[in-house]
Amino acid sequence: MSAPLSAGDGMDSGNLYGVGVGPGDPELMTLKAVRRISASPVIGYFAARGRPSNARRIAEDLITEHHRELRFDYPVTVECLAPTQSYEQMLLGCYDEAAARVEEELLAGHDVAVLCEGDPLFYGSYMYLHNRLADRFTAKVIPGISSLTAGSAAIGRPLACGDELLSVLSGVMSADDLKTSLVACDAAVIIKLGRNLVKVKSVIESVGLLDRAYYVERATSAAEICSPLADADIASAPYFSMVVIPSAVAGLR
Amino acid sequence: MSAPLSAGDGMDSGNLYGVGVGPGDPELMTLKAVRRISASPVIGYFAARGRPSNARRIAEDLITEHHRELRFDYPVTVECLAPTQSYEQMLLGCYDEAAARVEEELLAGHDVAVLCEGDPLFYGSYMYLHNRLADRFTAKVIPGISSLTAGSAAIGRPLACGDELLSVLSGVMSADDLKTSLVACDAAVIIKLGRNLVKVKSVIESVGLLDRAYYVERATSAAEICSPLADADIASAPYFSMVVIPSAVAGLR
Repeated sequence: MSAPLSAGDGMDSGNLYGVGVGPGDPELMTLKAVRRISASPVIGYFAARGRPSNARRIAEDLITEHHRELRFDYPVTVECLAPTQSYEQMLLGCYDEAAARVEEELLAGHDVAVLCEGDPLFYGSYMYLHNRLADRFTAKVIPGISSLTAGSAAIGRPLACGDELLSVLSGVMSADDLKTSLVACDAAVIIKLGRNLVKVKSVIESVGLLDRAYYVERATSAAEICSPLADADIASAPYFSMVVIPSAVAGLR
Repeated sequence: MSAPLSAGDGMDSGNLYGVGVGPGDPELMTLKAVRRISASPVIGYFAARGRPSNARRIAEDLITEHHRELRFDYPVTVECLAPTQSYEQMLLGCYDEAAARVEEELLAGHDVAVLCEGDPLFYGSYMYLHNRLADRFTAKVIPGISSLTAGSAAIGRPLACGDELLSVLSGVMSADDLKTSLVACDAAVIIKLGRNLVKVKSVIESVGLLDRAYYVERATSAAEICSPLADADIASAPYFSMVVIPSAVAGLR
């Protein structure tokens, strides 16, 4: 893999690697991810404050006492905010601080592998480091299995075929926008559900797609839950859940 | 990974595995794909008649003299068709015949691993076997790195973030449909280019997205080509090429 758009400028600087570790099952890491994690002296990962890192857990069997670990804590929304401070500002501060810590390692000549659940550039946090560092250091991305393909594997249904339009939607979108997008596509995956799942299910029902929709939680991990959306407990969807609406045609060809 | 929707009915039948081998770089196979290929006595793959199989080439270092190989030849469009025969009919016949050969192995108690470039259920040929066999045999899918994430890794740009709408489009779509879809989404990947690339580029230009569009050919393989679409030779795009239009926002956050 090459990174033609992000050449490094220092012969002695370390390299930044965005390493996709896949959706949850450690066996779904690629050979390249395993090699890169094993060979990097410094490992970074994001995690919610006070919680274990999902990405680190996937790769934990590869991490030894020879690795130095950089944990980047996300601020949690329940923390008290000063009157002038928004959550968005806190997030940007978190990314700036994480990038500064990675930069320090790169300048010292150390390679840094940042572990990313799923794929690093597909709705992932790695992009915030990439955007801050790839213009000054060599930054390479090792793609990972995304929730998109993990979800269709979990339900065992072809996602899309031929000339079909597949859309990745967010549960945060408004009901009207979701409806418009669902009507326009042949197959869809809806991520970022959480408390939005009640709205998402209602929209799916309103456009007549409920019988094709599946609910998938923590795809490919030991805690995987997978059922028709009609049967799912929509009150309790965690962040790492999604709705998969496979193509009507792809399963019949 | 479970396959709750495709339980086998014979205690002694073999299992069918749809194994994603990723976009091209053999190191982008997952540990699970490597294990499954190594452990399966029978390996199947599709290929254009007279041409090497891309999926087999990716996995070739894992294939030994202990494997029995089932090669499924696609009919090629330049073959003479009888007056009553369409290419579509020939394809369906090809899938039926491939499924019959796999079924024979499964009934004999042999596991069959079908190698799939990219991901098995994401616009892939494996679905034609899955659709014909998963109701009678245990069929499990091992997801692979899709062209979607391989393409964004190749250009080194975040694909989408936050609540953005990402669409996968086909170059076979009409210019009007492509235009409508491109305007409606925040980021897009356009697959199945070939001779459609001239039309695709023209549509992208007409909606003002040319400066954000990249052309990627055989992402992650030794033959990878990657450039801004404006600079690409659009007369010669092979089937395994795509256009990636990353989100305008994701690269700036």
